[in-house]
Amino acid sequence: MLRCNKLGLILAMLQITLVDGSGGVVFTSNYKEKPLRDGDDDPDFVHAFNGYAPAGSVSSEAGRGVVYVNYGRVEDFDKLEELGVNVSGCIAIARYGKIFRGNKLLHAQERGAKGMILFSDPGDVAQEGVADDDVYPYTWWLPGTGMQRGTTYMGSGDPLTPGWSSTANAYRLTMEDADLPKIPCQPIGYDDARVILEKMGGMAAPDEAWKGGLDGLAYNLGPELLDEYSGYTLHLDTHNTFQQYTSYNVIGTIKGEVEPDRYVLIGNHRDAWGFGASDPSSGTAQILETARVMGQLMADGWRPRRTLVFCSWGAEEYGLIGSTEWVEEHVEKLQERSVMYLNTDTCASGPILHVPGSPLLWDAITDITKMVPGVRQGPTVYDELKDYYTAMNKTSIEMTTLGSGSDYAPFSFYCGIPCLDLWFRRDKNKNEISIYPSYHTGYETFYMVDHNVDPGFRIHQGCSRLASLMLRFFADSALIPYSLEQLPKTIKEGIDSFKKNGKRDELIKIYENYALLEESIDSFIDAAKTFSQDLKNKEMGKIDPVMLRAINDQMMKLEQVFILPAGLPGRPQTRHAVFAPSQFDSYAASGFPGISDLLHNLDTLDAEERQQREKQIK
Amino acid sequence: MLRCNKLGLILAMLQITLVDGSGGVVFTSNYKEKPLRDGDDDPDFVHAFNGYAPAGSVSSEAGRGVVYVNYGRVEDFDKLEELGVNVSGCIAIARYGKIFRGNKLLHAQERGAKGMILFSDPGDVAQEGVADDDVYPYTWWLPGTGMQRGTTYMGSGDPLTPGWSSTANAYRLTMEDADLPKIPCQPIGYDDARVILEKMGGMAAPDEAWKGGLDGLAYNLGPELLDEYSGYTLHLDTHNTFQQYTSYNVIGTIKGEVEPDRYVLIGNHRDAWGFGASDPSSGTAQILETARVMGQLMADGWRPRRTLVFCSWGAEEYGLIGSTEWVEEHVEKLQERSVMYLNTDTCASGPILHVPGSPLLWDAITDITKMVPGVRQGPTVYDELKDYYTAMNKTSIEMTTLGSGSDYAPFSFYCGIPCLDLWFRRDKNKNEISIYPSYHTGYETFYMVDHNVDPGFRIHQGCSRLASLMLRFFADSALIPYSLEQLPKTIKEGIDSFKKNGKRDELIKIYENYALLEESIDSFIDAAKTFSQDLKNKEMGKIDPVMLRAINDQMMKLEQVFILPAGLPGRPQTRHAVFAPSQFDSYAASGFPGISDLLHNLDTLDAEERQQREKQIK
Repeated sequence: MLRCNKLGLILAMLQITLVDGSGGVVFTSNYKEKPLRDGDDDPDFVHAFNGYAPAGSVSSEAGRGVVYVNYGRVEDFDKLEELGVNVSGCIAIARYGKIFRGNKLLHAQERGAKGMILFSDPGDVAQEGVADDDVYPYTWWLPGTGMQRGTTYMGSGDPLTPGWSSTANAYRLTMEDADLPKIPCQPIGYDDARVILEKMGGMAAPDEAWKGGLDGLAYNLGPELLDEYSGYTLHLDTHNTFQQYTSYNVIGTIKGEVEPDRYVLIGNHRDAWGFGASDPSSGTAQILETARVMGQLMADGWRPRRTLVFCSWGAEEYGLIGSTEWVEEHVEKLQERSVMYLNTDTCASGPILHVPGSPLLWDAITDITKMVPGVRQGPTVYDELKDYYTAMNKTSIEMTTLGSGSDYAPFSFYCGIPCLDLWFRRDKNKNEISIYPSYHTGYETFYMVDHNVDPGFRIHQGCSRLASLMLRFFADSALIPYSLEQLPKTIKEGIDSFKKNGKRDELIKIYENYALLEESIDSFIDAAKTFSQDLKNKEMGKIDPVMLRAINDQMMKLEQVFILPAGLPGRPQTRHAVFAPSQFDSYAASGFPGISDLLHNLDTLDAEERQQREKQIK
Repeated sequence: MLRCNKLGLILAMLQITLVDGSGGVVFTSNYKEKPLRDGDDDPDFVHAFNGYAPAGSVSSEAGRGVVYVNYGRVEDFDKLEELGVNVSGCIAIARYGKIFRGNKLLHAQERGAKGMILFSDPGDVAQEGVADDDVYPYTWWLPGTGMQRGTTYMGSGDPLTPGWSSTANAYRLTMEDADLPKIPCQPIGYDDARVILEKMGGMAAPDEAWKGGLDGLAYNLGPELLDEYSGYTLHLDTHNTFQQYTSYNVIGTIKGEVEPDRYVLIGNHRDAWGFGASDPSSGTAQILETARVMGQLMADGWRPRRTLVFCSWGAEEYGLIGSTEWVEEHVEKLQERSVMYLNTDTCASGPILHVPGSPLLWDAITDITKMVPGVRQGPTVYDELKDYYTAMNKTSIEMTTLGSGSDYAPFSFYCGIPCLDLWFRRDKNKNEISIYPSYHTGYETFYMVDHNVDPGFRIHQGCSRLASLMLRFFADSALIPYSLEQLPKTIKEGIDSFKKNGKRDELIKIYENYALLEESIDSFIDAAKTFSQDLKNKEMGKIDPVMLRAINDQMMKLEQVFILPAGLPGRPQTRHAVFAPSQFDSYAASGFPGISDLLHNLDTLDAEERQQREKQIK
């Protein structure tokens, strides 16, 4: 089945130049990676740019007007303000990592910056050194011209159809009405970043946490340049064009034999920023492989109890467009019929299994890791995971809920469908990095995956095995194998986080009945326990088919109870009251995101704003 | 099962006085009806007032400042503006009828009136004369001191918990933040109205449609009084107090044998404004009688396939509080599990069956009228209905969708659950009136019902028979007996109304793709037809139980597809995109209410407002 969505995309090309006092150009930045192996170059390969950042041409003053903002987080900008470094009217330069790049740009824009440069710092992407043989193609680390491309749009889906489906004839906003970034933004590699950063003066980096890995560099904050560059100006020119493309979702189904109107879904996107060998190819492989496995089973006479849905999304990299628009079109049906959605974006980008998702799926995926051979030396993936967490001094495997950043977002945060994001990622015991180093660059090549990430493709194989078993488990089990008790327990952890970060007292001050929320969660824990016990005591064979379906229906709707129809405050597309990304970092999961976002910066508000905010919290 | 809701209520007492030039009080209005029979009086009987209208004391100037606004509709106020009669700063006096009183008060408030008086006009409530033997207790017509009480709140539910359930510990708005009327309002009878209206000067009533039935009265518009009363002032004093009460919903269930998690509901409220003999007693009788019938069947061994839910609502008269708060608390479960909701508010207030509701229920209720003996001379209720419409020169029985005004509102307009409002009402062939004359007055007595409305209680009996059969039909049919094809046909009629009223051209001008909406509805008609045909061709006995349930599930969700999660523009509690009350008369049904409300007064907007409105329409 083919589906057509029109997209709103912005493409950009850049030039960052440094001009000396006499008007001579002393530096022009690179717009693509230096080829290091045969095949690294491709005439069609996309130049480095940030999606949706507008075309623009901005310049610093002579000798001043550039500010280093660390990772561009709220706390980084707050620190600068505290230090008296004013970003307003300047070009902000931030390193990639920690949070979603769209948040970095939004924060810079909100603080009045007129442009932004994003760079990959060796401290994050070349932790074993920047010499030729420390990086690609010899290791998985990033060479100096590697540039992370990527979108900066803060919403999900086609920006011209927020909240409704971008079908061929849909009504579309004009570009002016779309909620897109307002200042130009450009990614560069660390070789080019050095040229700029080494000329910066002003205050020194306030502490080690502000210092990146560029050797011999002070990471001064600016906005002044060093005295010897007092005549220099920095120019940021991005040459964007607005273009509309048609993108396709490819949806395949294997119809369920007993309950064709119940869906177990798996999805991955096809579009890439860099050469895309891990992202999205390693995930796409899972769709193909699980479909192949199921096809083989069918040849042997098997048919799934419930319908399997294989989704290949278009335009994920421009803001989860394919999946969001499809969900917006089919939201009622999906909410009514979906048992779970399994996402396999970048399945193989490191050796460690990571499966953030709905607590309703935690026990099932844990059980399945015990059935799958390890991808390294362990007998099973489960054993490998246990060893990994033991090495971190943790007594058990840690399961987490979802942040945003891939196609499960509309399923989870808009619909409340239990989702799991299945991938193998970096080993945190070895490297504390945000994402694999070649992510979204021209060095994310097949050679990189084959030699440095997944030699022998054992991670790919492990992924497919986990995905196939998970799909079958949920498609075939008469009683849907949700871990009901995990849900309220995890909600309790979300609410307990307010105790830990001291916000609980603040909440009680704002609303005297706050403790009732905690009490309700305790009751929910008890109720889930009783319900699960009752199920365990039932003899499955004796439940009649309609009663069985009634029980499944009730469980399928459990997480959807937490969907707020009109969305979280100011975020109509994020409707999940207990598990959703933080407003200040779209990549990060947050418990009770509505409340924690409303608490943000409460103390800095004036009396009237504060009163308004407190009302929303209540 | 008892459920507790705290309510926000406002009670008022009034005094309307006319003071002559020398300061002497020449008239004080009545605050309760004159007893005409033994038992008409009761020391506890509530004084006449309008719920939620604030306490206030406002006066006209000497000799001017009172405007007669006919029924207080948008078009009435527009007419006054056209005639140059300015309501601003005046006391508006309107007759009851045509639209919901809350809209009258809101319109007056929006036009700047400082107070409002509502009166029952003999043209509406005493069409056969005002002599003693033309009215109660000799006929069903209203005597001169009969006053229609009633709420003026424009929202639904507890005004202090808009959008969430008013449970014991719920967060509540302060009174200042609640969206309540801002100007005082008071109902009076036509005897008192005459005293005021006869003194009014200014322009004469523009046409017959502005003239009520008070004999010899010109129905002058004001704002001047006649010259001989140039020294007179009119004072409106309402003495309201804000009080919180606890109200209860009483919910009884008979658990379904096969599908306990599918609900067929019947509901009626208990609270009354007047003596309440028709409203709500005649409807409450239906709950009791259907429950009794079902109980008798159970004694004979019967059990319903699906669960029957009997709902006795509290605080309907203060804005559908009991039902709204209950629905807000259980919305997910109700949307997931409800097959239909049958409302029986004022079941017996006249001889003619009237069953506005979801088109999905039209064929079923029509079939059932053929099984129930007539309540007058006809062999069946169906025959009586046919005769009634034949006398109106109509070739078939007319079915309509729902306006607001009773407890089905949250089920239908918030949840999209198919609802039917079952009642017998006035004979339009005899009298063109908005509601039975004693509605919400002190003359709505048992004697009135027993002698003038339903002698022999045959209407009550007909009501119970229809309700019981309807409940059993939906509780026991293996395949839910929805009339699927009626839904898209009726939607088409809604969209065709834009052709009839000339708005279609306007819509095409605003949005060039408007015709696609019409095309989709045509496709929907075809799809419903195909689906229904497929069902008819199936051998029911051969469908396995899970497939049967899947088919029912799909049909149950059909109307909910039209629920907009965030509600209609500016109306978060009204979420039904195709069937909902008009924003300008809460009693009236409207097809595509979102669109028609947005088209309202489009031409009077300035360019920017108009652009904004057109965007919303798109």
